[in-house]
Amino acid sequence: MLKQIDYQGKLEEIAEKFQGRKTEVSKEVNKTVQQIVADIQKNGDTALFNYAKKFDGYDVNTSNLLVTRMEREAGLEQIDEDYFRILRRTKSQIEEFHKHQLGNSWNIFKENGVIMGQIARPLERVALYVPGGTAAYPSTVIMNAVPALLAGVKEIIMITPVKADGKVNPNILAAAEVCGIETIYKVGGAQGVAAVAYGTESIPKVDKIVGPGNIFVATAKKICYGVVDIDMIAGPSEVLVIADKTAKPKYIAADLMAQAEHDKLASAILVTTSEKLVQQVDEELNRQVQNLERREIIESSIRNYGGAIVVKNIDDAFDVSNQLAPEHLEVLTSEPLTQLPKIKNAGSIFIGEYTPEPLGDYMSGSNHVLPTGGTAKFYSGLGVYNFIKYLTYSYYPKEVLADFKEDVETFAKSEGLTAHANSISVRFDEM
Amino acid sequence: MLKQIDYQGKLEEIAEKFQGRKTEVSKEVNKTVQQIVADIQKNGDTALFNYAKKFDGYDVNTSNLLVTRMEREAGLEQIDEDYFRILRRTKSQIEEFHKHQLGNSWNIFKENGVIMGQIARPLERVALYVPGGTAAYPSTVIMNAVPALLAGVKEIIMITPVKADGKVNPNILAAAEVCGIETIYKVGGAQGVAAVAYGTESIPKVDKIVGPGNIFVATAKKICYGVVDIDMIAGPSEVLVIADKTAKPKYIAADLMAQAEHDKLASAILVTTSEKLVQQVDEELNRQVQNLERREIIESSIRNYGGAIVVKNIDDAFDVSNQLAPEHLEVLTSEPLTQLPKIKNAGSIFIGEYTPEPLGDYMSGSNHVLPTGGTAKFYSGLGVYNFIKYLTYSYYPKEVLADFKEDVETFAKSEGLTAHANSISVRFDEM
Repeated sequence: MLKQIDYQGKLEEIAEKFQGRKTEVSKEVNKTVQQIVADIQKNGDTALFNYAKKFDGYDVNTSNLLVTRMEREAGLEQIDEDYFRILRRTKSQIEEFHKHQLGNSWNIFKENGVIMGQIARPLERVALYVPGGTAAYPSTVIMNAVPALLAGVKEIIMITPVKADGKVNPNILAAAEVCGIETIYKVGGAQGVAAVAYGTESIPKVDKIVGPGNIFVATAKKICYGVVDIDMIAGPSEVLVIADKTAKPKYIAADLMAQAEHDKLASAILVTTSEKLVQQVDEELNRQVQNLERREIIESSIRNYGGAIVVKNIDDAFDVSNQLAPEHLEVLTSEPLTQLPKIKNAGSIFIGEYTPEPLGDYMSGSNHVLPTGGTAKFYSGLGVYNFIKYLTYSYYPKEVLADFKEDVETFAKSEGLTAHANSISVRFDEM
Repeated sequence: MLKQIDYQGKLEEIAEKFQGRKTEVSKEVNKTVQQIVADIQKNGDTALFNYAKKFDGYDVNTSNLLVTRMEREAGLEQIDEDYFRILRRTKSQIEEFHKHQLGNSWNIFKENGVIMGQIARPLERVALYVPGGTAAYPSTVIMNAVPALLAGVKEIIMITPVKADGKVNPNILAAAEVCGIETIYKVGGAQGVAAVAYGTESIPKVDKIVGPGNIFVATAKKICYGVVDIDMIAGPSEVLVIADKTAKPKYIAADLMAQAEHDKLASAILVTTSEKLVQQVDEELNRQVQNLERREIIESSIRNYGGAIVVKNIDDAFDVSNQLAPEHLEVLTSEPLTQLPKIKNAGSIFIGEYTPEPLGDYMSGSNHVLPTGGTAKFYSGLGVYNFIKYLTYSYYPKEVLADFKEDVETFAKSEGLTAHANSISVRFDEM
């Protein structure tokens, strides 16, 4: 099922296909979401409750909007202790890695008396969006919550759509419990996003919205961007595997399929110096796929968005990868750690044959919320830095201001801003 | 002209007014810009050149799109050496502050053999938007370019709209020269933004677009957000001054007006423990405004969006300020540096009577590209960190993967992702 792609001179074409897998937001979706957002902004709870009833089927009101302590406890009773242990172990792995990302406050004390610096402060309130149904991943709850907790965010609230029965997936409740999240609102969709962006009578306005969602959620996040901060607009997932002849076809095939099973739009690409390897990986794909539950999705995404690119040498492989800027990059070469300096663009890198990408989806420690569709050229994966803002400050003594006086006045006047110049000069007027 | 605002119980109302000064993007503007962006994406140069001719009046084509070396030199000849010295001094001040923001690469070597870390890499190509006409500020060119240069961005290109004569403001050319920017395209507006976001035959696609612009530029940036990264959607400028009875009315009045002169939508607010000070500042405003060129703008913005809030004690003043999250905050109290811990939300803070905010617009060293309209609750001012992305990486030895094997398999299966579990298990299959 793995087709070989001739990359010579076609890299831009491949990149376009690889990076263009996002679902286009139709004008209709855009218009619908615009209306929902405007309605929530204007009518608050009333609008929110109407949409929840209409789209999710849950007859929500102020008294059943929040998951109660009893509901939480009933849900958590369904979770066995071993699952809790795994969630806690995951959280601790994520913490161990992310604690190195703590905010960078610093200051300068200059000899002339100037004091300046940068203060890192956490955002105060963040909303974590959790999709309903089968797309609700407890691992994602942990990946989003831990960096916010480490940043020092005081209040993390969760929003998630529920069906008519008003029940939240117990695995999600367990992940929330492990992260200490106790405020869970039973609303989702574009209306849920708008509610936390603008605030309603029952739901507080937040500073930032994070977490994945369908096209309505993604569109609402983009529309509300600026009113609140958002994480990123995530597209379908992808992996690029760089392998030389020392790599094991069996592992490569397994890793390509782990990516492919996410979604028919997922992409899994092998870039290798060995034409023979492509053949062997293909055989392994056909063999292993037999036993996998999501076989249909896997075959579809590998056929449509997968492929193998044979390159002349390993440096070419990294060139291809840097152009495509994959969300996940596996390096399966001899001495793989020595290849790191060649990597410019990638969300997260998995090195060597015992660091399969799915380990990073759960427990390696790095974050699994990563830039997709080529946006790793300019975005980072989620980190503590996403929940911190920097304030700059400065203190100038009179003598130092005097030293800058004329230059600032001249500069301000050159920009036509005489009141700016005045603000400096009044400080030196003789009274 | 400074009206007193009673803040008791009205803080939300004040905040709404303060934070809601953005020009609403009308449906028409949104639709027009959507069409322009789609047209550029599809038709590249042809569309770009048509819009430039239509909107700017410049008959642009592939041969006169770029500012030539001769044009640059002719422009630079009009700049005197003292102005160059001021620009270079400004650049050096900005560098001295921003060099402390350099990217944070780190790694962990665990005793069990795991190697993990984060690699900071600069974005490769960035576009700096410079508005045409009187809104073109050389100081802004330096504020945007320096952090990008320090981050290690290889290619900074500038785009700016020109009128029929094809001339770029010499002060802007001088600021570009000082920053080493040699590639300047004579296009702007929504079409210019779309051109660098998607790339055309003549203009390369960039990773990020920074710099201010009118409502069409801002809307185009928001629409292209995700295809490229953008800085932020800046609104009208604002200052909040916290002062006690030790503060000098003359300085406060001058600083309020320096802010107010930017724009009729600019906001300048005094928060003080001294009712007497309000009266004195008002007198100073009426006196000083007589000599200022932009008197009409100043009076309009102070009347409509300015005001004085008298609070009971200095802690209340900081509460008000944290709620409003001003772009610029001046602290004019006794022992002002001791107040820093109280500040949660502000773009940049100016401490003591000889650190007027306009110093920060030019030469104090901190950046003047700052979050407005209350977005300082979640955004930082522009910094080196905005031109860096982080790649995470991990290397696991076989024994450590073995230790995580069962937990990852269980976790993956609980999420319905059996190919994820397979990717771990194949590595331990007996052949």
